[in-house]
This record gives sequence, C-alpha cells and structure tokens, in this order.
Amino acid sequence: MAAPGENLRINADRLWDSIHEMAKIGPGVAGGSNRQTVTDEDGEGRKLFARWCEEAGLTMGVDKMGTMFAMREGTDPDALPVYVGSHLDTQPTGGRYDGVLGVLGALETIRTLNDLGIKTKHPIVVTNWTNEEGTRFAPAMMASGVFAGVLDMEDVYSHTDTKGLKFGDELERIGWKGEEEVGARKMHAFFELHIEQGPILEAEGKDIGVVTHGQGLSWTQVTITGKEAHTGSTPMPMRKNAGLGMARVLQLVDEIAWSHKPHAVGAAGHIDVHPNSRNVIPGKVVFTVDFRSPDLAVITDMEQRLKIGAKAICDEMGLGIEFEKVGGFDPVTFDENCVKAVRGAAERLGYSHRDIISGAGHDACWINKLYPTAMVMCPCVDGLSHNEAEDISKEWAAAGADVLMHAVVETAEIVE
Amino acid sequence: MAAPGENLRINADRLWDSIHEMAKIGPGVAGGSNRQTVTDEDGEGRKLFARWCEEAGLTMGVDKMGTMFAMREGTDPDALPVYVGSHLDTQPTGGRYDGVLGVLGALETIRTLNDLGIKTKHPIVVTNWTNEEGTRFAPAMMASGVFAGVLDMEDVYSHTDTKGLKFGDELERIGWKGEEEVGARKMHAFFELHIEQGPILEAEGKDIGVVTHGQGLSWTQVTITGKEAHTGSTPMPMRKNAGLGMARVLQLVDEIAWSHKPHAVGAAGHIDVHPNSRNVIPGKVVFTVDFRSPDLAVITDMEQRLKIGAKAICDEMGLGIEFEKVGGFDPVTFDENCVKAVRGAAERLGYSHRDIISGAGHDACWINKLYPTAMVMCPCVDGLSHNEAEDISKEWAAAGADVLMHAVVETAEIVE
Repeated sequence: MAAPGENLRINADRLWDSIHEMAKIGPGVAGGSNRQTVTDEDGEGRKLFARWCEEAGLTMGVDKMGTMFAMREGTDPDALPVYVGSHLDTQPTGGRYDGVLGVLGALETIRTLNDLGIKTKHPIVVTNWTNEEGTRFAPAMMASGVFAGVLDMEDVYSHTDTKGLKFGDELERIGWKGEEEVGARKMHAFFELHIEQGPILEAEGKDIGVVTHGQGLSWTQVTITGKEAHTGSTPMPMRKNAGLGMARVLQLVDEIAWSHKPHAVGAAGHIDVHPNSRNVIPGKVVFTVDFRSPDLAVITDMEQRLKIGAKAICDEMGLGIEFEKVGGFDPVTFDENCVKAVRGAAERLGYSHRDIISGAGHDACWINKLYPTAMVMCPCVDGLSHNEAEDISKEWAAAGADVLMHAVVETAEIVE
Repeated sequence: MAAPGENLRINADRLWDSIHEMAKIGPGVAGGSNRQTVTDEDGEGRKLFARWCEEAGLTMGVDKMGTMFAMREGTDPDALPVYVGSHLDTQPTGGRYDGVLGVLGALETIRTLNDLGIKTKHPIVVTNWTNEEGTRFAPAMMASGVFAGVLDMEDVYSHTDTKGLKFGDELERIGWKGEEEVGARKMHAFFELHIEQGPILEAEGKDIGVVTHGQGLSWTQVTITGKEAHTGSTPMPMRKNAGLGMARVLQLVDEIAWSHKPHAVGAAGHIDVHPNSRNVIPGKVVFTVDFRSPDLAVITDMEQRLKIGAKAICDEMGLGIEFEKVGGFDPVTFDENCVKAVRGAAERLGYSHRDIISGAGHDACWINKLYPTAMVMCPCVDGLSHNEAEDISKEWAAAGADVLMHAVVETAEIVE
C-alpha cells in the first residue's frame, strides 16, 4: 500500500468555485442556502452534481432512498470500493458548507486524481446521502440510517412534512427514487469531510480535526410539578415553585457534565414554564436535558445522577418530578485504521491538527456500524452552523479536502 | 360613638343566596363566573345589584367611570359617608366570590341594619367599583385608580380590549356611564371585604384576616444574553449558556426574598427561553422577577441586591444582562383606626383572627391614598382564586360580613 506524496494537493480554486456554484441553487434569504431534501431545489442540485460526476468519468448509481453513488473504477475487479461523501441537502436557513463541502471535497479528490492520472486498486465512490438534515422529514441521517439497518424504508417513506406531503412521494416526484436496494453495496471503508459545527478548531488555530469518536446523546424530558399560586399572596414557606426546582436541577445538570470533563457536556435548551404569567408561581415546568459523551458508561452515569439528584431536590421542595427519555444514540468509536489514515494525512501534509469528537450526528456515524469509517473536520467561523451566516475560508476547505484525498487514496491504494 | 353589640349578626343565608343569584349572570364554563367588565353580563349584574339596592331603600349614584354608589342616609346631614364595597366584575374564568363577596356583604350590612331599624350618624354607601380585574381592559383597579387620581380618565377611556373595542365606548354601550365627576365624593372612611386569595387563613384555621398593609410590588424584567450554540459540539468551557445564568439568578431571587422573612416574597412566573430548541444552548432568556413586601425599604433593597448579584453571576459566566422595571406600586399602610375597628369587631364577635398583609392589589389600596381605609379578609379553599374552582364556605362568608358590618357601623356611629 502506497501513500500519496506530500506534494499531492487538490485544486482549491476549483473546489471553492464548485461550492459556490452549488450555492446558487436554492439560495437562502441571507446569503446561505435553502435546499431542503427532496424539494425541486434538491433535484436541481442533484442534477448539477450528476453532471459534474459524469464529466469526471464516474458511473452513477441511485438507490431506493435516492442516495447517489458515483464510482471511479479501481484496477482490482475484486476490491471493494472506498466510499467518500456527505450530503447536499441543507437546513431551511442553512449554510453553504454543511454537507456540501464533504460531497464536493470528495468530487474534487476524483478530479485531482484524474488530473494526475493516478489509479487506485479499490474503486472510489463519491456519495451524496439523502436527507441528512431531517428538518423537512424527520429523522436526520435518514438514508444512511436505512442503509445501516437502523431505520425502516417503508416507514420513512410515509413520514410527512408540515404540508402533509410524504417523503417517498416527494422523492419520486423529483425523479431521484432509484432502483438499487438500500444497503446492498459493500464498502472497503467510508470517509466523510465536514465542517466542525463547533468552536474548538478555530479557537485553537488548528487546520484539521481528526475525528476519533462521535458523541453519544441522551435526551431526558423532565416535568416538575408544583402548585400554581399568586406571587403576591403566597408566603415563601407555602410555595411549591416548579420554576425554582427547575433552576436547581439545571445547576445540577451543569455540575454533572463538568464532573466528566473534558468530553462530556450537558445543558437544557428547551424550557417551557406554565402558566408563564408574571404574577403566578410556576405550577409546572417541562424541560429537556441534553447529555452527551463519547463514552456510553459516562452517559449512563449522567442519566442516573440526574434522576437521583433531581428527585432529591424536588422531594425536599415538595415538588413532583417525572422523567421521560425522548431521544438518544450510542457513542461512536471510529475505525482505528481509518482514523490513523486521516491523522497520517494531516501529518504528511504539514497541517496542524488535533483529535476531536464529533458533537453532532453525521451519516458517517451510521455507516461506522457496518464498515470501517472515519471523518475529517475543518474549522468554521465562530462555531456557527445551521445558520445562513455559517462561514469557512477557502484555505480551511482546501486543507480539509487535501487530508480527505490523502486518507481516501491511501486506503484505496495507489497503483504505482 | 357606640359599637354594635356582639349579638348583631348578618343574615348568612340571605347573603349566600344573593351571591349565588348573582353567579347566575355570566356563568363560567366550570361552575365559576365570566362577568367581565363592561360586557352585557356586567350590565345585567349591575341591574340586579341596582334592583336590590332600590329594594333596600338606597339612593343610587353613578360616576363617569361607571362606579355605583348606593347610599343609606345618616342622621347627621353634615357627616361624610362611610363607604363600603368592592367589585362585581370577574376574570374570564373567575370565581363566584372574588369581589362579589365584598359588594354583597356590604349590601347585606344594609339589609341587616334595615331589619333591625338601626340608624347611623354617617350615611353608608355601598360601592361597586368598575373594572377591578383589568383583564379585558388594563390596568386593574381602573375606576378606583381614576378616583384616587393615579390614572387619567380620558386615557383609560381609550384603552382597548383584544377586539379593539374601547373601554369608554363599551361603558357607554352597556348604559352605565354616569354623570358624576369621578372623585367628587368625599369619604369619612372606606372598608372592603375580600377573600384572601392566599392560603394563610385556611392553613392556620383563622376566620378573619385583619389587613394591616398591602404589599408593595416590584417587577424587574431581566434579559440575559449568552451565545446560541450546538449542545453537542460546544465544549463546556466555551459555552455562554443564558439558561444556566437564569437558573443561578432564580436561586439568588429566592435567597433575597427569604432574607427578608416573614413578609417579603420573590419569584419569577414568566420565563422565555430563546431559541427554545432541544439541541441549542439558550442564547437569550427573558424573565420577570416579582418582589413584594409591605416595606418600601425592603423592596428597594431587594431590587438593588438583584441587580448587583445577578450582574456578578453573569459577569463571571461571560453573559450579558439587562434590567428593566416593568411594573410596581408602593406598599400600603392601612389606616390605624379603621384597622382597629376591624380587629375590634372580630374580637367582639368571637372570631379567630390574625393580622395579614394583602398580597394582591385591591380598590382599597387606591382609596387609602385619600381616605382612612381598611380591609377584612376571609379564608378561601386552598388559596385558590382567579380560577373557576375558587371556593369559600357559607360560614366564612358570614364571618367576614359580620366583621365588615361591625367595623362599618362602629365607624358610621349608631344613633341610640
């Protein structure tokens, strides 16, 4: 197996131009993108991507979930392909880079190999996963989830958007429901390049994040019940203030997360207070505690300590409390060899880098259940994502795509 | 001045029947009342009350705010009247007793004096203040506020309900805009009987609350600004979690209120979290701190400690904070002699009693700015009010009306 030389680089201008050409389809209202899954705009974006793939000499396959697989042949007819990609769909007020960089960075890898006449033993397949965002049709990472066997295709076909349209019908309508059985393809490995969607790399001035794990997630919806009462005429000792109980539980959530530093995190983003009137002591508060860690044992510990600690807080205050698990997925440990290929590529190319844990979910997290997988991350300005103001520099994009190409080509094995 | 004998009691059955006769007008959906101010139902309620006043031999006057003054003559043509009453308007889903007990308890006082042929030196005027509740047209205690000179009549005439109808137009439409100048009447004293709207009297098994003060109120709207960020990809040390800042400030509010026990109270009933999404760290939280105390210096101290303490919490967390005073009124100290009359009446009648502070606002709070005023309270079940489930017993109503009558008659001076 030969690694490409350190002089091998992608064409940064061509990558950058392609990203902004794609952004012309489904433009957002504020400079970002609105190219939601299986809309007309998604269809247009797919058409452009398919044309580029054809121009690069790739052979397109589409499965029944609409995922696009564009293959560059390898020299060994028995070698399984190396897959590389991400998603072209966006949030309704999304950025130009989330997902898109991963697909077009993969395409740029092929274009560069074509430029230099480099052949690989394993085929390389540029992949565009359908409906990674999950905002129009829940859940997120839909097509890769079906591919990995964690979601049922007939079930997700029936999921509806806010207008009542079904995912399966819309996929067919835009003309991208393929014939291939989902999950029929076997992979030698899968690589995904993505913007960090967090602030670490930029803050530390690192070019590359070598993604070793995907954080596991636990969402616990907490309902605290007290007693609605007049804020004026209810003496302090007679109050059952669900809002104050919530305040103390939020402090506990923070303490629990810090106790598992540096990787665990915890917070509540969703808080509803009832009746939410200035002169009524809250009788009920519903909020969702979001705990994440790359270590399943830590997640379990955090969940347990929340339940015991919050119950004790509420018992002491005469409040009722209930817990409901409303979401979760297990932590992901990416493939050791694939991760090494990413780290080695960054080293070889002279890019500053650090190991990083992906806080968000990605298609790579599902594919890792089946095949050796790793991810490359590049910084994004201010950690901002799922926002039209999302931004990266051309240099960050190029460094990420360089590392992606080196890891892919090393894994696909250059034929000397 | 002669006090009535301890054998003098109101007619409990008649009072109770009148309350429930009034409740037939504007019935609520769940057994309570929906007789909002200057609606057709309010007009019907006023008509019934006016008929009862006429039957009791009273002379009705109505001022330009629609407040009804039904006078029983005294023996001294130069003596100023003793006023006694409350309000007949209700919340949209209000109870049968809030306000109504005070008006019909006053009427029952007159009926009892009539039964026994008792004459007083001072006239007695049964009063129904317009729009005490303030839910259809803000603010609460509207007519008594104009009477006391703290609100402007032309201004409140222009206040609109959710349909855009004006208070002044609606008052005229139902036929109860009178000719009298508001505030032209001079008072010897004013007494108001009201249900407690809090849990103290019931919890302590007391028949009567002798209201010595009305709590002052301070509403501070607090805006904490952090930074919206992904709950998964933002490490704990890089978070600016406005929700966690709010949690710590709520704990501070509680500590500040307890430090001024037993009378001060503090809480936040209104809390809005932005963007209120499960996987986004709150970037902004807006909430209103409600502090109350019968002592103006305590209110000022609580406000100051909130500002200093909350600022320190937010500075340490890298959060921004802003304060806006969005409501407030000064504490009320009721007239010493009137309060003594109430306490003496409870003593004489053999009712258990305690001094109490009114946590809610009442018409008596405004009238006390001009004339000697006091209030009588009776218990209510579970402290519940502004709710169709509001409840009191016939015995509680009778005890409250007995004390009201004795205090009024002592102040109006029986003519032997």
